[in-house]
Amino acid sequence: MDGKVVTFGEIMVRLTPEGYNRFTQTDRINMTYAGAEANVAVSLANYGMDCVFVSKLPEHEIGQAAVNSLRRFGVDTSHVLRGGDRAGIYFLERGASQRPSSVIYDRKGSAVSQASPDEFDWKSIFEGARWFHFTGITPALSDNTARACLEAAKTARDMGITVSCDLNYRNKLWSRDKARECMSEIMRCTDVCIANEEDAKDVFGIEARDSDIANGKISPEGYADVAMRLREMFGLRYVAITLRESINANINDWSGLLCGDDSCVFSKKYRIHIVDRVGGGDSFAAGLIYGLTHGFSDRDSVEFAVAASCLKHTVEGDFNLVSADEVLRLMGGDVGGRVRR
Amino acid sequence: MDGKVVTFGEIMVRLTPEGYNRFTQTDRINMTYAGAEANVAVSLANYGMDCVFVSKLPEHEIGQAAVNSLRRFGVDTSHVLRGGDRAGIYFLERGASQRPSSVIYDRKGSAVSQASPDEFDWKSIFEGARWFHFTGITPALSDNTARACLEAAKTARDMGITVSCDLNYRNKLWSRDKARECMSEIMRCTDVCIANEEDAKDVFGIEARDSDIANGKISPEGYADVAMRLREMFGLRYVAITLRESINANINDWSGLLCGDDSCVFSKKYRIHIVDRVGGGDSFAAGLIYGLTHGFSDRDSVEFAVAASCLKHTVEGDFNLVSADEVLRLMGGDVGGRVRR
Amino acid sequence: MDGKVVTFGEIMVRLTPEGYNRFTQTDRINMTYAGAEANVAVSLANYGMDCVFVSKLPEHEIGQAAVNSLRRFGVDTSHVLRGGDRAGIYFLERGASQRPSSVIYDRKGSAVSQASPDEFDWKSIFEGARWFHFTGITPALSDNTARACLEAAKTARDMGITVSCDLNYRNKLWSRDKARECMSEIMRCTDVCIANEEDAKDVFGIEARDSDIANGKISPEGYADVAMRLREMFGLRYVAITLRESINANINDWSGLLCGDDSCVFSKKYRIHIVDRVGGGDSFAAGLIYGLTHGFSDRDSVEFAVAASCLKHTVEGDFNLVSADEVLRLMGGDVGGRVRR
Amino acid sequence: MDGKVVTFGEIMVRLTPEGYNRFTQTDRINMTYAGAEANVAVSLANYGMDCVFVSKLPEHEIGQAAVNSLRRFGVDTSHVLRGGDRAGIYFLERGASQRPSSVIYDRKGSAVSQASPDEFDWKSIFEGARWFHFTGITPALSDNTARACLEAAKTARDMGITVSCDLNYRNKLWSRDKARECMSEIMRCTDVCIANEEDAKDVFGIEARDSDIANGKISPEGYADVAMRLREMFGLRYVAITLRESINANINDWSGLLCGDDSCVFSKKYRIHIVDRVGGGDSFAAGLIYGLTHGFSDRDSVEFAVAASCLKHTVEGDFNLVSADEVLRLMGGDVGGRVRR
Amino acid sequence: MDGKVVTFGEIMVRLTPEGYNRFTQTDRINMTYAGAEANVAVSLANYGMDCVFVSKLPEHEIGQAAVNSLRRFGVDTSHVLRGGDRAGIYFLERGASQRPSSVIYDRKGSAVSQASPDEFDWKSIFEGARWFHFTGITPALSDNTARACLEAAKTARDMGITVSCDLNYRNKLWSRDKARECMSEIMRCTDVCIANEEDAKDVFGIEARDSDIANGKISPEGYADVAMRLREMFGLRYVAITLRESINANINDWSGLLCGDDSCVFSKKYRIHIVDRVGGGDSFAAGLIYGLTHGFSDRDSVEFAVAASCLKHTVEGDFNLVSADEVLRLMGGDVGGRVRR
Amino acid sequence: MDGKVVTFGEIMVRLTPEGYNRFTQTDRINMTYAGAEANVAVSLANYGMDCVFVSKLPEHEIGQAAVNSLRRFGVDTSHVLRGGDRAGIYFLERGASQRPSSVIYDRKGSAVSQASPDEFDWKSIFEGARWFHFTGITPALSDNTARACLEAAKTARDMGITVSCDLNYRNKLWSRDKARECMSEIMRCTDVCIANEEDAKDVFGIEARDSDIANGKISPEGYADVAMRLREMFGLRYVAITLRESINANINDWSGLLCGDDSCVFSKKYRIHIVDRVGGGDSFAAGLIYGLTHGFSDRDSVEFAVAASCLKHTVEGDFNLVSADEVLRLMGGDVGGRVRR
Repeated sequence: MDGKVVTFGEIMVRLTPEGYNRFTQTDRINMTYAGAEANVAVSLANYGMDCVFVSKLPEHEIGQAAVNSLRRFGVDTSHVLRGGDRAGIYFLERGASQRPSSVIYDRKGSAVSQASPDEFDWKSIFEGARWFHFTGITPALSDNTARACLEAAKTARDMGITVSCDLNYRNKLWSRDKARECMSEIMRCTDVCIANEEDAKDVFGIEARDSDIANGKISPEGYADVAMRLREMFGLRYVAITLRESINANINDWSGLLCGDDSCVFSKKYRIHIVDRVGGGDSFAAGLIYGLTHGFSDRDSVEFAVAASCLKHTVEGDFNLVSADEVLRLMGGDVGGRVRR
Repeated sequence: MDGKVVTFGEIMVRLTPEGYNRFTQTDRINMTYAGAEANVAVSLANYGMDCVFVSKLPEHEIGQAAVNSLRRFGVDTSHVLRGGDRAGIYFLERGASQRPSSVIYDRKGSAVSQASPDEFDWKSIFEGARWFHFTGITPALSDNTARACLEAAKTARDMGITVSCDLNYRNKLWSRDKARECMSEIMRCTDVCIANEEDAKDVFGIEARDSDIANGKISPEGYADVAMRLREMFGLRYVAITLRESINANINDWSGLLCGDDSCVFSKKYRIHIVDRVGGGDSFAAGLIYGLTHGFSDRDSVEFAVAASCLKHTVEGDFNLVSADEVLRLMGGDVGGRVRR
Repeated sequence: MDGKVVTFGEIMVRLTPEGYNRFTQTDRINMTYAGAEANVAVSLANYGMDCVFVSKLPEHEIGQAAVNSLRRFGVDTSHVLRGGDRAGIYFLERGASQRPSSVIYDRKGSAVSQASPDEFDWKSIFEGARWFHFTGITPALSDNTARACLEAAKTARDMGITVSCDLNYRNKLWSRDKARECMSEIMRCTDVCIANEEDAKDVFGIEARDSDIANGKISPEGYADVAMRLREMFGLRYVAITLRESINANINDWSGLLCGDDSCVFSKKYRIHIVDRVGGGDSFAAGLIYGLTHGFSDRDSVEFAVAASCLKHTVEGDFNLVSADEVLRLMGGDVGGRVRR
Repeated sequence: MDGKVVTFGEIMVRLTPEGYNRFTQTDRINMTYAGAEANVAVSLANYGMDCVFVSKLPEHEIGQAAVNSLRRFGVDTSHVLRGGDRAGIYFLERGASQRPSSVIYDRKGSAVSQASPDEFDWKSIFEGARWFHFTGITPALSDNTARACLEAAKTARDMGITVSCDLNYRNKLWSRDKARECMSEIMRCTDVCIANEEDAKDVFGIEARDSDIANGKISPEGYADVAMRLREMFGLRYVAITLRESINANINDWSGLLCGDDSCVFSKKYRIHIVDRVGGGDSFAAGLIYGLTHGFSDRDSVEFAVAASCLKHTVEGDFNLVSADEVLRLMGGDVGGRVRR
Repeated sequence: MDGKVVTFGEIMVRLTPEGYNRFTQTDRINMTYAGAEANVAVSLANYGMDCVFVSKLPEHEIGQAAVNSLRRFGVDTSHVLRGGDRAGIYFLERGASQRPSSVIYDRKGSAVSQASPDEFDWKSIFEGARWFHFTGITPALSDNTARACLEAAKTARDMGITVSCDLNYRNKLWSRDKARECMSEIMRCTDVCIANEEDAKDVFGIEARDSDIANGKISPEGYADVAMRLREMFGLRYVAITLRESINANINDWSGLLCGDDSCVFSKKYRIHIVDRVGGGDSFAAGLIYGLTHGFSDRDSVEFAVAASCLKHTVEGDFNLVSADEVLRLMGGDVGGRVRR
Repeated sequence: MDGKVVTFGEIMVRLTPEGYNRFTQTDRINMTYAGAEANVAVSLANYGMDCVFVSKLPEHEIGQAAVNSLRRFGVDTSHVLRGGDRAGIYFLERGASQRPSSVIYDRKGSAVSQASPDEFDWKSIFEGARWFHFTGITPALSDNTARACLEAAKTARDMGITVSCDLNYRNKLWSRDKARECMSEIMRCTDVCIANEEDAKDVFGIEARDSDIANGKISPEGYADVAMRLREMFGLRYVAITLRESINANINDWSGLLCGDDSCVFSKKYRIHIVDRVGGGDSFAAGLIYGLTHGFSDRDSVEFAVAASCLKHTVEGDFNLVSADEVLRLMGGDVGGRVRR
């Protein structure tokens, strides 16, 4: 496979109590590193693709540990700038049954959000690249990153590099108005747009028919509609949407759809016993990129993406630590979880 | 909310192997502190109520650690006497699937069970109180605590303080005959009686129609009947009953009912994926007290109580470490366990 | 119960990441000791039977730790030879949901596989024994162990000791052809043959009608047929087959059947929430031996075996750390997993 | 003992890898809560004194966990305001031998540093107080806290409350010039000043004769001189200085001196095998406050303070979890560490 | 070596916080099993000797886990009676530097202390035995065990079995008067008496010249004197005394002496960096028994005993998990701790 | 600094019980990856150098985890071949005080030892390299690796690349005779030879005057002599020797010397409180390579090497996880271990 994939965003410290403990009861914490675009990079590197993560991290040892967490899985970190004051942090409590998982962000003032857009030389970063991916979180971090994103997307488009963007709306980072304005501009440089069952409505006000997310009712057809409208609105090549039906914090149904030139294809639906669902959307995005860059049909691309993210839900941490072979095996129908010896 | 809640009982050392390990295979133990009335106190303190726990603990460091475990969550421990020989202990193995959780008690001779009834000055303890709660375990510990309970209940009643009692029958602590005799006297000073699906039969011989607990079949109406009979028998204001249908050690259905002046109200039923079910009944009692002291309707009170104890099943340890907001959110229908960011 | 049970095989180091972690993400490993025949010995010792495990282990501390792991549960290790180069090792990653558990063996050159058949004095080992058990893994380890197994089985038969063998086919250890040849000879000295839903086909080419294992569809009658054919082929007294229907890596249905003189009896089926499924088959074999040596009816024997192995799935590690009482309680219908106090 | 002690400052999340691990090699983190003035409050509460900690923490669960960490040891947290964006954080790697412990602060923008001075009603906070303590870290956090500190100190002085201040210079928080200016003003409202072997020079330029800290050479007399000059400069009642001679990261010599009206008294020197040295100075301050409020002689006060902080070095975390009895026992000469049964 | 060693006493649950944590700060506990005579049995079994531990333990799973802890290291537990209410428990906090380790006993009412002396059939227990060992803790537990001890010692003497007794005075279990009376009678059936630097004074009022234990000053000659006086007083064959000089909780000097027919021999002295010092005396006793039963000279016996217990201080838990080879290697002068590959 | 460093050898699974536990007592294992040449590569990568590790590892997940462990710290693993049967393993128990650390190797048949010399294309591997390093362990693994080493060394020499070799004699891998023969040939292609205080004698029979390693007495001058003789014998540019004086398993003195053209320079000696001493020699080798490739004087080179390896002794695992700055700071005299904030 020729050409590397570039992703751009923030990688944060992730602090999670062991097991189902709450922060108020334990001092045993699992400290890893995570972030939407970093998660995609690791997924793709685990599939054997050349993958570059672009960001900025402080020079101190926590910044170094974040870099190491990416190198460990083979991500190229030579374009991670070093400097700035702090690494973003997020606290995650794992939910169970009717108790939801809960996330507290403490990412204001992070090195990448304070980085000047000039610090990133996109022309040189994109040398040898075939794909550029980021999510709506990156422009939401600060005006700096919003500008950097736009520049990057434009440069990529100019250089003939495919651009994918996962809407990933975070209401704690920016308002819907600001998001719509910025993301609209970005979408115009984008080839592949990815969203979950809430993003399109949050960012662009496009609502799905016949769905009631809170009650776990989702109409795939309604979402196909949403996808087609998004596609037209911005002249996108592909729109993919993930559909999560949350039975409870332990059990989710998970599927997706991909709308391209002719029509929309719907994936199988998996009933998942969750180990760690954070990063599920990112692993879908990575799976989709893998499929679309490896000559898969639209159907196989979305099936690979959904199978990959199904497996992600069984892996601790944000990173999807599975191989392409494992995804292909699940996609091929090996769903019973029998021991492999 | 004016007026504090007083609870009286034993707090024990709780020793639990990590995960699903058995005592014969691991030396990694989680050591916390727990007891029916202490659990109620912590629940209420977590909801922001002023709560006093009355007990006695040895002067040594284990006694101190038990005190600290209560202070941590805001319980007033100024009425925990210090002295005596030992803290009670219980060993708990977490069950899974068809293997039941298993509890071994080692509580004989504990400081509170050896305390003379004279050591507790109930008049002074109840100053500023509006509610007094204890369970059938406290009088079962020893003749000392039986007398102390009765005195406390009478004093509370005299002072116009609402008295609630959870039957909590433990056949290893006393015989059914002794329990019936003692609890009958106590019930006559009680306003609110709480029971699970087995207590009423064990203590007062009142059996529910159409239920077969061992096979997980429970008739709410049969239990409403039990509640009404209990209510009449002792002139109680309220009788509440929790209904556990145990599919297996991992999955339980959980609901409750509350019978007051006019009629009985039945709560929603939750299918729970269990993290730790010990303390489930205590969290129901605390939820009920919260509802009844905050002007909730009977229906809302039992819904709050059941939602609170549903969440308890997702928390490690006996203590219910959730806020009133979290309970209200679940009670309001947010059952899907979607990540909160 | 008179007469001890002897088992012969390899005990390995078992390395498992904590929780659902993958080897690529954690350095926290649980190191225990396990092996098909050792697992059976421990099960039986936990039921109070005298049980001897025959094997060979290096003289170093890892070998000693393996010996200790057996003594801990009361297995007689006086016939574990000490010497040789290494202990076999296996790496186990626990699966979840659609991600299967995965086993990597590193057992080549283990002490027992290198032991000369002459090192085992079967006549003396079998003194006072009533039962000899091993599995198809032992002869698959090396020509040495294949010869030792055959000798042992013949000696046992000559001494009037019941011989049981679990087919336990491992395609990484030997080819189907080699397995068929060797196991055919062994079967002729065997009284009780145990197999899972795949072994009979793998080793003897006997396939069940109407079953589709990959899709979790299993026909008990089809397997009864397989059992009867096996029984006739080798003149066996009993053939037992375990039937695993793998919904996913967390949830399995589990049952078994036993075919004796007159007919086949089918056990209840359990839906299991899995803690650790490795060693499930071994715990079934041990349960069967317990039943057949304690005067249980065929039906009770297979029910005990299936209940025992149902409980095994809830215990960490290969060893089935449950008592006969616990198995009898489950077999008696106590399936709801309610707390035992 | 009449009258409570009030302390004012920041309490942070403290993140420490287990054992001697570095952040780049482990994900197992110990997460506790710590801060100079919080440490003093906990020490004093552990000695049985009434102690109020004044601060501000976010409303989220991490803020709550910080509050709970103080309540656990009996500190009154009713004056901890809730609000603001974030809790300060510090990362701590434990050093060993020639490798120093290393601290990375990430405390910018913490809730208390953003709190307006008006949010603290010192008159009401100080009701019933006899002592007010803070350290140079609090005014260094922001102009807000600098103003709040000054106001608090003035109010305390006006109300006849003893004011103690530990210089605690942190060069990452403010410059020496800014520190000197601010601390000079504060010192004029202060009764008791505490410093380590570097602070007086860093803040006020007063250097000790005959000492070479980097090489572990310290002249107590030189520091008595420093203390007397500080005392005169600001008309202080007492100046106390801790003297750390760092043999390596595992072994330190530790002593102190106290200069009052007549003269300076020097404590015993302890050779300490370190478990956790962070919070050592704070435990000295707390010991001194304990001595001076309990009618101890100057000599006994400094001996208590040094013994207390000697013990702190053996306790994990910033908090000094020892009782007054334990300190008195060490102060009384029981230095051999023989088992107490 | 012919003839087994029998020991008699209590085995308790031992609860220890991980690392240097205090009970008030952690819930991570290490739960093992320990007791003076059980410790001796495990030591000897680790040296390859046949060793029987006599005691009584409850039938529940904690009792079983205690039995398993002994079997694991090869101790014969066939004479551990099962029944009674509870297992004794002890809480242990590991000290560091000037903070002493601290032990809280909770052993009242343990199964063995409640066992009737008739339950132990000493004649049958001692069949095939050559040595009987116990400590002063066993008779101190209750009048029952005092009588059982005396009976056992007399029976052993009658059967020509060597009797050794470690004085092991515990002031929380009985008064000095009661201890003197009982131990005097026991000493008259004893061949080998073992004591630490405090026991002889505590029990028999025999004080060593020129020693000041609290200040870590010990005169071996003074203790030789004590030993000789003890020897004469009761007509003992051997008296051995361990000499601990406690620099602090991390560093101890450790040596011993053995007085036999002709004279006293003094061992080397080891400066020990302590991992876990509990059980140090028991490992000395076991070492001495090993030497005296293996034809060692008096000098070699005490050197083996002291080297063995030196190594014990480096092993977690009460049990001395070292081989005879390891002890011999240290005794032979290999003190530098270089890596063995 | 131009030009990368290439190292060649085996990377193994390293299994270590937590803390000071022995394998017979715990199941909590730390699993990392280590090997002499991999350790050097990681050290150098941590100093910011481009470093390539050449080896072979199985295709399975354990092999992948070993690769990841190197990538994490920035080592180039593009020349790690994948295939073969197994990864080598070593078991390590951490010693304490007089109990030595103990290593059990289980590395026979590892992938790299079975690799054909033809699989490594040294010309292409060495492109852009300036230094090639390996140790005596690599040729000792098998005839294959011996041949590969020799070929590699010759190719390097031909290409003008500096060759360094650490003698690292392991008597379990080959005889002294075989080692001498093979290492003599290798030495003739070597520029820099590194040895510890035992290697020169073990491999070449060159013994130091006036030293008695077992008793911790070492004469630097005697070793300078050894170095000079080695230097002459093989026409080496440099010979460096590390000098370990083992007080006990916790405390070692550590120094080194370097003999070049004119004379020998001796480093400072450090008294080290050990966290983990395995990999100490490798970290010295890496430090020396760093110094010699960065234009350091001979004296500074050996001081850097010794300071680097001093720090290694404080880091868990074989890898030396320190930066060049940290080494320079220690080398510059900052030995007191004061907290860095």
